[in-house]
Amino acid sequence: MLNTSFKTIGVIIRLDNSAHQKEIQAICDALAEFADLLIFSNEDELFIKNYPIVDIKQIGQQADLVVSVGGDGTLLRTARLLVDSGIPMVGINLGRLGFLADVTLGNLKQNLTGIFSGKYSVEKRFLLDGEIHQTGKTPVSHIALNDIILHSHESISMIEFEVFSDGQLINRQRADGLIVTTPTGSTAYSLSGGGPIMHPTLNALALVPICPHTLSNRPIVLPSEQCIEIRLGQPGMAGLVSFDGQSRAIIHSADNIRITRHKKEITLLHPEKYDYFQILRAKLKWSNQP
Amino acid sequence: MLNTSFKTIGVIIRLDNSAHQKEIQAICDALAEFADLLIFSNEDELFIKNYPIVDIKQIGQQADLVVSVGGDGTLLRTARLLVDSGIPMVGINLGRLGFLADVTLGNLKQNLTGIFSGKYSVEKRFLLDGEIHQTGKTPVSHIALNDIILHSHESISMIEFEVFSDGQLINRQRADGLIVTTPTGSTAYSLSGGGPIMHPTLNALALVPICPHTLSNRPIVLPSEQCIEIRLGQPGMAGLVSFDGQSRAIIHSADNIRITRHKKEITLLHPEKYDYFQILRAKLKWSNQP
Amino acid sequence: MLNTSFKTIGVIIRLDNSAHQKEIQAICDALAEFADLLIFSNEDELFIKNYPIVDIKQIGQQADLVVSVGGDGTLLRTARLLVDSGIPMVGINLGRLGFLADVTLGNLKQNLTGIFSGKYSVEKRFLLDGEIHQTGKTPVSHIALNDIILHSHESISMIEFEVFSDGQLINRQRADGLIVTTPTGSTAYSLSGGGPIMHPTLNALALVPICPHTLSNRPIVLPSEQCIEIRLGQPGMAGLVSFDGQSRAIIHSADNIRITRHKKEITLLHPEKYDYFQILRAKLKWSNQP
Amino acid sequence: MLNTSFKTIGVIIRLDNSAHQKEIQAICDALAEFADLLIFSNEDELFIKNYPIVDIKQIGQQADLVVSVGGDGTLLRTARLLVDSGIPMVGINLGRLGFLADVTLGNLKQNLTGIFSGKYSVEKRFLLDGEIHQTGKTPVSHIALNDIILHSHESISMIEFEVFSDGQLINRQRADGLIVTTPTGSTAYSLSGGGPIMHPTLNALALVPICPHTLSNRPIVLPSEQCIEIRLGQPGMAGLVSFDGQSRAIIHSADNIRITRHKKEITLLHPEKYDYFQILRAKLKWSNQP
Repeated sequence: MLNTSFKTIGVIIRLDNSAHQKEIQAICDALAEFADLLIFSNEDELFIKNYPIVDIKQIGQQADLVVSVGGDGTLLRTARLLVDSGIPMVGINLGRLGFLADVTLGNLKQNLTGIFSGKYSVEKRFLLDGEIHQTGKTPVSHIALNDIILHSHESISMIEFEVFSDGQLINRQRADGLIVTTPTGSTAYSLSGGGPIMHPTLNALALVPICPHTLSNRPIVLPSEQCIEIRLGQPGMAGLVSFDGQSRAIIHSADNIRITRHKKEITLLHPEKYDYFQILRAKLKWSNQP
Repeated sequence: MLNTSFKTIGVIIRLDNSAHQKEIQAICDALAEFADLLIFSNEDELFIKNYPIVDIKQIGQQADLVVSVGGDGTLLRTARLLVDSGIPMVGINLGRLGFLADVTLGNLKQNLTGIFSGKYSVEKRFLLDGEIHQTGKTPVSHIALNDIILHSHESISMIEFEVFSDGQLINRQRADGLIVTTPTGSTAYSLSGGGPIMHPTLNALALVPICPHTLSNRPIVLPSEQCIEIRLGQPGMAGLVSFDGQSRAIIHSADNIRITRHKKEITLLHPEKYDYFQILRAKLKWSNQP
Repeated sequence: MLNTSFKTIGVIIRLDNSAHQKEIQAICDALAEFADLLIFSNEDELFIKNYPIVDIKQIGQQADLVVSVGGDGTLLRTARLLVDSGIPMVGINLGRLGFLADVTLGNLKQNLTGIFSGKYSVEKRFLLDGEIHQTGKTPVSHIALNDIILHSHESISMIEFEVFSDGQLINRQRADGLIVTTPTGSTAYSLSGGGPIMHPTLNALALVPICPHTLSNRPIVLPSEQCIEIRLGQPGMAGLVSFDGQSRAIIHSADNIRITRHKKEITLLHPEKYDYFQILRAKLKWSNQP
Repeated sequence: MLNTSFKTIGVIIRLDNSAHQKEIQAICDALAEFADLLIFSNEDELFIKNYPIVDIKQIGQQADLVVSVGGDGTLLRTARLLVDSGIPMVGINLGRLGFLADVTLGNLKQNLTGIFSGKYSVEKRFLLDGEIHQTGKTPVSHIALNDIILHSHESISMIEFEVFSDGQLINRQRADGLIVTTPTGSTAYSLSGGGPIMHPTLNALALVPICPHTLSNRPIVLPSEQCIEIRLGQPGMAGLVSFDGQSRAIIHSADNIRITRHKKEITLLHPEKYDYFQILRAKLKWSNQP
């Protein structure tokens, strides 16, 4: 008995190269057995046949379900584009198992049948707003599902900055940079930087210094409601701010970034037997074999 | 204008040695200017003059405010003894600035006057219940404000154990042990073990492996509502379970520990201008000077 | 053409349980095709047939080659027992690939034929002497191939100690303990404690603090010729000193340990195509697959 | 009784701004009491009076002693410029105590008198040669006293590379970059990246990955005689190579860097009671006070 509430599916396709054309066509055909499709892609001339290619706005207005086809990176983009629409999302992974995109080609039919029968688990994930304030300019906002990262603009040099929480000074740092990560991003870049794993249901964010000069400068976990402000310190210094490692902005001394929890969350649908820890064990190779 | 709601003060005194007698008498005399005192101490023959020595139960029944005199360690004990009474607590530090006991001798009068005038900031801190289940025995419960630690009983040997969250396997580990820490404990032993700093207002706990055999085994932050279960693995193995590093129990293979959030929190009163990050900066030497 | 210099083989067998009897008999029979055998084991009643069971002294006097049958742990014991004999050693692994015992059952015949034809690579590994000085007692010496570890005797409590290098103070520490590791031990317990990997040919040792209270207290690599002295600090404190995690001693305040490079090295023979980094990649799972 | 072997002093002055003019003039005047001076600086119009301004070549030919005035950064530059001359070096620090430049203004007269009386301790420090091989170009060489660092050219993105030791693959990595550090550099950037402290007398270098994707990818210490080769992996990728964080080069896929120990060492003179560990304790704040 199929769940009739998903009548129109928005399919978001990210192509890094021309590989996987056949798999993607097959995924679309499989999805079309359950509902009408609207396709959006970063490619101008998409190879997909038989389904209407639309702009992202139309998907936001008409889709009941969004399917992101690619990997975790594609789902990050999809989340930022469509978070305010409130439409639930599913991630299909063309490559290796992802933390977010957990429907793989091997279990596609079975998982789709489950999801369209209403057998899925629902998970909310929050995003971050990063507002860049620069002297004499209108503030610019970007959002991120994984992380907002401040990094020295010149790869190999420390930057100096101050970090505030709700207006209160946390510390003044000299480091390669600072990662502000959501629970979702805690298993991405933040983990390489020494940050803790945070369970997806936590209303928390972590501040993870990158190669900090002061050795006692350690990751800090804060409630996600706190407003984080980062002020770039030293005259003549330039920083690069990155959102999910995908969009970027350059800031200079006296500029600052204000990071707050985005007002809406995404709704991620997982196959029914979704087990966060099982994915962790697989991705981090926690089995005890040699 | 003094806050008349604190009419009776329970004073908890921890003496590690006979030092500080003079300071402690002075603290009691200073407190007595604001309210009636009831004294409780771990010492049989306390040197304090002029105030009634009572048992802890009487303090739980009659005090409006509890003052812990010693250091962070004394406040940990006080918290475990009196959490269920709901009486607010203040920590006076005889030595160096503490994370919890933040009234020092130098600012005693000023801070007491402030607190008894109703000028203080209020902070809730949650505790953990650890229930030890052993074959053929009635489960035994202990509580902890900082952390519950499982450690190999023989100092120099790994133990093997499984960790579950709400019944779901997180992982199977070989390590020297595992720290389950509250935000309060995150700046104590957990920090030496590589755990993150967690803000006191977070409803979260962290699982921090001690010298884990698998190098990708990293600290995990979980909602404090999740029930953590640790099962000791290998036949013939013995583990030591410690509560705030102060009370202990030995467990064996097939035994397990269930850790849940304690139903009540303590209410900690701080001097009015309490700044958590300022204490962090001081204790972790985050200033940039050489 | 076989290498005639290995006429007598001392076989060291370590049995943790009665498993592997069949494999061990097969290994002995395979070895006996190349040379005469002398067997030594920790078991009183060894099941091995057809070969003389001798004491370790006789092996030290008569063997031209020592074959350690078990795993890395067995080779550690063998090395400590026979380092002063100067007899070259080979490690056969009954279980998973070891760092030291790198002849496995799967490639046994091929590797033995190679080694007895003179096709092997030779590697020297140095050991540490640990001399325990206790008030009123004659100093006692132990040796170690991997590491000498000082740990709090009570599992869950810091100890305080001072560390010296050639009489010069390095630092005063509060920690769970300290690992003094050789390059050989750098991939064992030390790695879990955050120590660096050290190439086997390095004439260096590392001091690796275990859960140090001071967060800037980091692993230090020193020339292996330096004499390390550790003095246990606080009155009433007890420490456990462990040698390769296998033999132990308890020390108290005012006691100290002096660690120097052992005057002789062991000679480890590896199969011809031995590749240290290949073993590292396999054991630490450095392949890039998910 | 003065050491007559230092008749001509080459003074290397690094000015980051016009500050410290008075101090620098005073240092030169103090030095001139012991020997003839030749001045070299990065500034075109140096303010120094009374002493000849020369080029670096002349200092290399005529000086018996080189005095570097500035900080550790100035001494790094001095070392790279003059290592092949074999002239001994002393570092005077205008700011905070340095690891290398350990004569400070406060103890200037006393230390100079000591050094010119032959009362000093002598320390050798080795450097690294980094040879950049790019398709179709003549290899270019740079030297470094602290470290050679490969970093993603775009600040916020991983790079992929392979690392070899004497032609043998160590591993294939995805990371922000890789630090190849000498013992001298081990207390600089490498320490922020998680590398171990290495004693100055060690003939070793360390490979320290920066934010590695594989969590078991850990610092490796190797003999300084091994030739390290790093090959940039992925098509379309760009890396930045930095020498002591001061000179730089951009490399692309298929390019590689070969790092070997420089054939000559510098000779560093320290005030007589030089204590490496004492400087470590001061710089890393290892005292136990709060």
